[in-house]
Amino acid sequence: METEKLLNAVKFDDRGLIAAVVQDATSGEVLMVAWMNEEALRKTLEEGRAWYWSRSRKKLWLKGESSGHIQKVREVRLDCDGDAVVLRVDQTGGACHTGFRSCFYRRADDEGWIEDGVKMFDPNSVYKTS
Amino acid sequence: METEKLLNAVKFDDRGLIAAVVQDATSGEVLMVAWMNEEALRKTLEEGRAWYWSRSRKKLWLKGESSGHIQKVREVRLDCDGDAVVLRVDQTGGACHTGFRSCFYRRADDEGWIEDGVKMFDPNSVYKTS
Repeated sequence: METEKLLNAVKFDDRGLIAAVVQDATSGEVLMVAWMNEEALRKTLEEGRAWYWSRSRKKLWLKGESSGHIQKVREVRLDCDGDAVVLRVDQTGGACHTGFRSCFYRRADDEGWIEDGVKMFDPNSVYKTS
Repeated sequence: METEKLLNAVKFDDRGLIAAVVQDATSGEVLMVAWMNEEALRKTLEEGRAWYWSRSRKKLWLKGESSGHIQKVREVRLDCDGDAVVLRVDQTGGACHTGFRSCFYRRADDEGWIEDGVKMFDPNSVYKTS
């Protein structure tokens, strides 16, 4: 794969980041939004597994490194401005650290935000702290 | 709709913004990524049409105000961190200013970025400069 050629078309912002929208390759459900720097995108393109940049921890992270909930990347798409990508993935387990399949498990309703997501796992048993 | 209650759960970043992922309500295709400040989200929730914040022009914009390509909002979803929303919309025309249905009209391929999007309109006839 011409990774450097792909990276050259991407416009990282003043923090060196782009937004990554992650979508289930089969159902089309939007699973999460995360951030990538150039190295995260390079590793994602080369390995076919999703890597991100954590703005809070200031480090690269492999999705699933703690939980085992890896994202196998089927397709990477770039937007018109070159500052956002869509990853179409096969998600093992659930994408959200709360245990829901998607991080977008809340829907705006007349009463407020309603949880209507699908629970895939118990976060207490997946993320062990000891 | 309890708009203020909805807005209170949203965590705008240090620029006062959240990321908005826009998805076709029927096909699930990701159409674009844009930015919202509190006022853009309030107007979107109240009017059922998508409003965004332009970082370059530093102003609110109604999607379709120039092109007529309005987004009718069917559903608004919030992520676990409260700093990104998914809008499920009915898109009139195409979402992208280039004339493609989706801004993500380029796919990573062994050769580079390949255009495989669906063209919906001629931007020269939609965005008149005179």
